[in-house]
Amino acid sequence: MTKLFVVGTGPGDAELVAPKARAAIQASSDLVAYGLYLDLLGDVCDGKEHHDLPLGEEINRARLALDLAASGKTTALVSSGDIGIYAMATLVFELLDRQLQGLEDHPEWLDVEIDVIPGISAMQAGAARVGALLGHDFCTVSLSDLLTPWETIEQRIHCAGKGDFVISFYNPVSKKRDWQLNAARDILLQSRPASTPVLLGRQLTREDESITITTLGELDAKDVDMFTMVSVGNSESRHIVNGSKEWVYTPRGYSKKLSH
Amino acid sequence: MTKLFVVGTGPGDAELVAPKARAAIQASSDLVAYGLYLDLLGDVCDGKEHHDLPLGEEINRARLALDLAASGKTTALVSSGDIGIYAMATLVFELLDRQLQGLEDHPEWLDVEIDVIPGISAMQAGAARVGALLGHDFCTVSLSDLLTPWETIEQRIHCAGKGDFVISFYNPVSKKRDWQLNAARDILLQSRPASTPVLLGRQLTREDESITITTLGELDAKDVDMFTMVSVGNSESRHIVNGSKEWVYTPRGYSKKLSH
Repeated sequence: MTKLFVVGTGPGDAELVAPKARAAIQASSDLVAYGLYLDLLGDVCDGKEHHDLPLGEEINRARLALDLAASGKTTALVSSGDIGIYAMATLVFELLDRQLQGLEDHPEWLDVEIDVIPGISAMQAGAARVGALLGHDFCTVSLSDLLTPWETIEQRIHCAGKGDFVISFYNPVSKKRDWQLNAARDILLQSRPASTPVLLGRQLTREDESITITTLGELDAKDVDMFTMVSVGNSESRHIVNGSKEWVYTPRGYSKKLSH
Repeated sequence: MTKLFVVGTGPGDAELVAPKARAAIQASSDLVAYGLYLDLLGDVCDGKEHHDLPLGEEINRARLALDLAASGKTTALVSSGDIGIYAMATLVFELLDRQLQGLEDHPEWLDVEIDVIPGISAMQAGAARVGALLGHDFCTVSLSDLLTPWETIEQRIHCAGKGDFVISFYNPVSKKRDWQLNAARDILLQSRPASTPVLLGRQLTREDESITITTLGELDAKDVDMFTMVSVGNSESRHIVNGSKEWVYTPRGYSKKLSH
């Protein structure tokens, strides 16, 4: 039997890594991951063969993981967050799909037993850090237009705004993409107030974490980098201040039936 | 110092409980939770004072947790999944907000230090169990119209459909609510094909887990109960079969640039 674990290790804090994720890494001889992710995991990675590939080589990373596993090495493909959310898991299945369609020449991939282990995603870490921002219906939108045309993304933001979803933006900016977040803000301003609370959570749960609570009107891509989670409240989200402590929460419903 | 942990313990499998969640429960003298959740956690709950309240008493559960913590007892308010997603966390902050507005008479609540610990939500457990259903932009919609008017929910489903989001329905049915899921299906059929893959994940990651992959056209509330996660793919989600193994994944992008 050949085995591939597809593992999400959560936002960064080692105390938020599921025991199941840690055990999968422990059971593997080979790890395919960015070096940074493994640094956050610590000792459990010692003695493993570590395979890294440059950013942008995601498909080849998934190929490598399948190849290693198919060769008989128990392998873990690892990402931070939830590996099923804007991460590597889907590429593994896309490759399997291609093989099943005869578009690849790797029948050995089909014998690999695959176990996907979810993790806590950045939107969840951010929402918890400021209270309960995801307390009601929410959505995620990736602002990366590398694989999805901007027109599709734009339409989706319009729908998210119109549906009054809490919105978490993944890939809000990169070195080459600096205008999409402000464009997204302007779309949302058509359907919710400028005072809507916004969370900027940078390096969530990590040593250099920083949390900023701002508003939709004040949101600006210049304050955001690749390590920042941007979550925008819905029309009922509330920013409250209790002394030195600030919270943002989104009520569970719209009819405000609070018992006494 | 008085302390309240607000803790999500994941979908059910003890191996998916974050160490941080377990440590919070360990550090508490009092637990406010459904009995079932604690049963899944095992020994860590031994010797704790356990406070339960009937289903439907969510606000009083949050009050009780704040009261206990304010009285000096280190307390954990516990739910399965992510306590920030359709769960108890937001009620705690709604109560604090009311106190800050002078609508409650519990100034002692404002001295409670609150630490929210996220967990893996059912949509993530389900997506991982079948591959990578949440591989691209997704949303969650609660079908419970107890606190949100059906017209609002309906509008949101329309928007989710039009935006081609993968959709996870929380609270899909209950003993008293049996028609909303089929109504939601009919709305989505206006914007995506009847062949769209749908996951029914019952008791995810628990001993009596059952997984069914069906289609939007075949989705029927009679096959769903309160313990079932219903996730609907987007227009590009794929159901693939590899021998006895089935997977569902949603590609990361829309332009299908797969390198070779």
